[in-house]
Amino acid sequence: MKTTKKYTLPESEIPQQWYNIMADMPNAPQPLLSPKTRKPLEREEMEMLFAKELVAQEFSRERFIDIPEEVQTLLKIYRPSPLVRASGLEKALDTPARIYFKNESVSPVGSHKLNSAIPQAYYNAKQGIKHITTETGAGQWGSAMSIACKHFGLDLNVFMVKNSYNMKPYRKMVMSTYGAQVHASPSEVTEFGRGVLASDPDCGGALGIAISEAVEMAMKTPDCRYTLGSVLNHVLLHQTIIGLEAEKQMAMAGDYPDKVIACFGGGSNFAGLVFPFLRHKLAAGAGAASAANAGSTLTADSASVSAGNSCLTSSANGGAPSKAANTKFMAAEPASCPKLTKGVMEYDFGDSAGMTPLIPMYTLGHDFQPDQIHAAGLRYHGGGQLVSQLKQDGFIDSYTVDQREALNAGVIFSRAEGIIPAPESTHAIALTIREALRAKESGTEEVILFNLSGHGLLDLPAYDLFLNGKI
Amino acid sequence: MKTTKKYTLPESEIPQQWYNIMADMPNAPQPLLSPKTRKPLEREEMEMLFAKELVAQEFSRERFIDIPEEVQTLLKIYRPSPLVRASGLEKALDTPARIYFKNESVSPVGSHKLNSAIPQAYYNAKQGIKHITTETGAGQWGSAMSIACKHFGLDLNVFMVKNSYNMKPYRKMVMSTYGAQVHASPSEVTEFGRGVLASDPDCGGALGIAISEAVEMAMKTPDCRYTLGSVLNHVLLHQTIIGLEAEKQMAMAGDYPDKVIACFGGGSNFAGLVFPFLRHKLAAGAGAASAANAGSTLTADSASVSAGNSCLTSSANGGAPSKAANTKFMAAEPASCPKLTKGVMEYDFGDSAGMTPLIPMYTLGHDFQPDQIHAAGLRYHGGGQLVSQLKQDGFIDSYTVDQREALNAGVIFSRAEGIIPAPESTHAIALTIREALRAKESGTEEVILFNLSGHGLLDLPAYDLFLNGKI
Repeated sequence: MKTTKKYTLPESEIPQQWYNIMADMPNAPQPLLSPKTRKPLEREEMEMLFAKELVAQEFSRERFIDIPEEVQTLLKIYRPSPLVRASGLEKALDTPARIYFKNESVSPVGSHKLNSAIPQAYYNAKQGIKHITTETGAGQWGSAMSIACKHFGLDLNVFMVKNSYNMKPYRKMVMSTYGAQVHASPSEVTEFGRGVLASDPDCGGALGIAISEAVEMAMKTPDCRYTLGSVLNHVLLHQTIIGLEAEKQMAMAGDYPDKVIACFGGGSNFAGLVFPFLRHKLAAGAGAASAANAGSTLTADSASVSAGNSCLTSSANGGAPSKAANTKFMAAEPASCPKLTKGVMEYDFGDSAGMTPLIPMYTLGHDFQPDQIHAAGLRYHGGGQLVSQLKQDGFIDSYTVDQREALNAGVIFSRAEGIIPAPESTHAIALTIREALRAKESGTEEVILFNLSGHGLLDLPAYDLFLNGKI
Repeated sequence: MKTTKKYTLPESEIPQQWYNIMADMPNAPQPLLSPKTRKPLEREEMEMLFAKELVAQEFSRERFIDIPEEVQTLLKIYRPSPLVRASGLEKALDTPARIYFKNESVSPVGSHKLNSAIPQAYYNAKQGIKHITTETGAGQWGSAMSIACKHFGLDLNVFMVKNSYNMKPYRKMVMSTYGAQVHASPSEVTEFGRGVLASDPDCGGALGIAISEAVEMAMKTPDCRYTLGSVLNHVLLHQTIIGLEAEKQMAMAGDYPDKVIACFGGGSNFAGLVFPFLRHKLAAGAGAASAANAGSTLTADSASVSAGNSCLTSSANGGAPSKAANTKFMAAEPASCPKLTKGVMEYDFGDSAGMTPLIPMYTLGHDFQPDQIHAAGLRYHGGGQLVSQLKQDGFIDSYTVDQREALNAGVIFSRAEGIIPAPESTHAIALTIREALRAKESGTEEVILFNLSGHGLLDLPAYDLFLNGKI
């Protein structure tokens, strides 16, 4: 904890708009496709599953989208979150790098997930929806939706990946305490779940299966909608409040990041921190090299998403320092689920059953079953539309981290900074440590910013096993 | 979470001094007695067990004591903690009362305990001590000392009450992750522990036993000192940062509490919130009624602690509103360990073995074995020197709360405010709810302030059992 310094933004400085990177991408992502017709998905189709205003955000090209006042009020319960100079970690590594982290673990549910749970519950309640379904891997998204739904008087059913349900019993207890109904997935509650169990009674579940169950229940229940905690554009949009705050706090610290690092599951905490910084690079036209990638090989009717949306004005760049054009954006993936690093860019379903729209993204295949790791929130097969396109266009790099390296980084960080990180976040820390040690070797005063997406107080068995040599 | 408002103090407003209530008490507490001679304890005796500067604080009569700069820097990692207007809870109770809570759960270890762990580790390190021992009930103090010792390069042995060790495995994992050595107490590591186990191999432990073990190890190890997370004056002193901050934040909110409520174990979170507000009542001379109690019945040589130390100057009152003289201070005790409410005011040992000094306090007897409750942090037999004297002098009232009422209050609060409270804190919430409902009945716009001393994320099994009708 050596001379660690915290940068606290005044409440009045909380962003009042989210940043929509769709407005600034040089190559717009190709459209989602209907699972039935395989043609570009119409809004009306998506509105059967999601609240209307969320669908509008999913398709929006507006650069900034207003955060409703009621949502702002609720976000202020824990926001702005602190930006911390990790001097303790710097000292432990003896590195000349200046390391900062955005501490999203301070939310009442212990992770960044509440940033999107609050607006998702809000828009559903506003529309008169009564019931919500969702799925959860590690349980962080489910916990966040549980308290958000409780606030807005929405009834919630959560399908939790069975392996996580068994491995992380405390997360299930959080959701129950907040009043949600939690089902271990595959469950007997849905037709799809029953089918999976019939063919494999011992199936430990997967995010794709849990999504299929939640989608099925939403489709079959009156006044019910489905919600998702990552992958989709509107979720990433809500999370940009992280990076928008961090930008102001880095200015308070008088620094600007050379490298922005976050772990990568479906993209929510990654995009949340990265997109607001990446917009300055997009504005600076640094993605020129990506022109080579403009001709996509995906077979989709992309007529509706042709050029014309990348009107990069100087306003998009705000007052970012000139070094913004050189900032690197680095995704830390688990070695057991490396979709950005080793996946293929193609259309794939978001779930296992093939009920969701087809998404143009880096994917390991919707039937990919990643190894059981403690960072359950990173066990998703696809990279989502926006991050995948930006990766293809050369704006984002990805790296894989082995679970042992990640947990070791978690222990180093805990002892240096006092916060035990979530297993997901340890992947970002491991990559940060690699870069900080590289900076030490070369004697570079590099500025690294990473996202501490959540704390690991409900994931302590992972540390216990690691410290006892059982991982 | 309805329109819940958070009052954030600027970092520059963090108190730079602790408040020592000894300076303002109308009747000074009688002195600690040496366990060997039964005469007033000499500083030198106490310095065998505790760091010198902590002993100096234990005996100090200075009203304000400077917080060392390095300690301030570390406290800023999570301080100032927010003061929150609990509008969600008010709404759930439909009460005209205005409820505020001080949110100490935001520290990296999840409770207020770090407020004293940091200075205790600091003063020990400054003195050149290398090894620290301590005990822990619920594990919150042990967690706090673990990270504080790691920061200052001190080696730490924690004796954790065996029942808690088994019931709260996650807390043990926190301490191990921070690098501490944790022993289930009674243990085989000390003579006293071995003795207890010899006569009762299945003994589940108690705080008094764990203290005896930690004290024994400290006495027998070179360069080693013992630390305690509550009860003693210097610990309560360090915790006053809570109330000193809260005072400024209540002013930001334009309110002043009619009732200040905290749970009561050994007094650390209670005194931390209460003493800074109580000083205004002491200054206002509202304790006149206590003169009747001035003639103590305790058999101790109190010559050295006669009058002369209660020089209440107007400066002690600061700018407190005139209603300060009427504020009530309410301790919430578990029904299973009601020392303030049902104990006897007498000299008693702080531990089970009789190795600590004798403390003049309300006590249930140092061999009292409270029922196993989830609020393990409240299972201590005595009320400590300062709070006991103030209770005897009529400045503090105490109330007992049954475990079911407490956990039910915890569920109501979780759903209304989004934060799952520690089982200890749920006692304060239960008492707050009682008072808020009373205010509803009488239609009184009362202002209630309570201490949310910690979150319950590592105590979720308590909620799980309660929600499933097993408590």
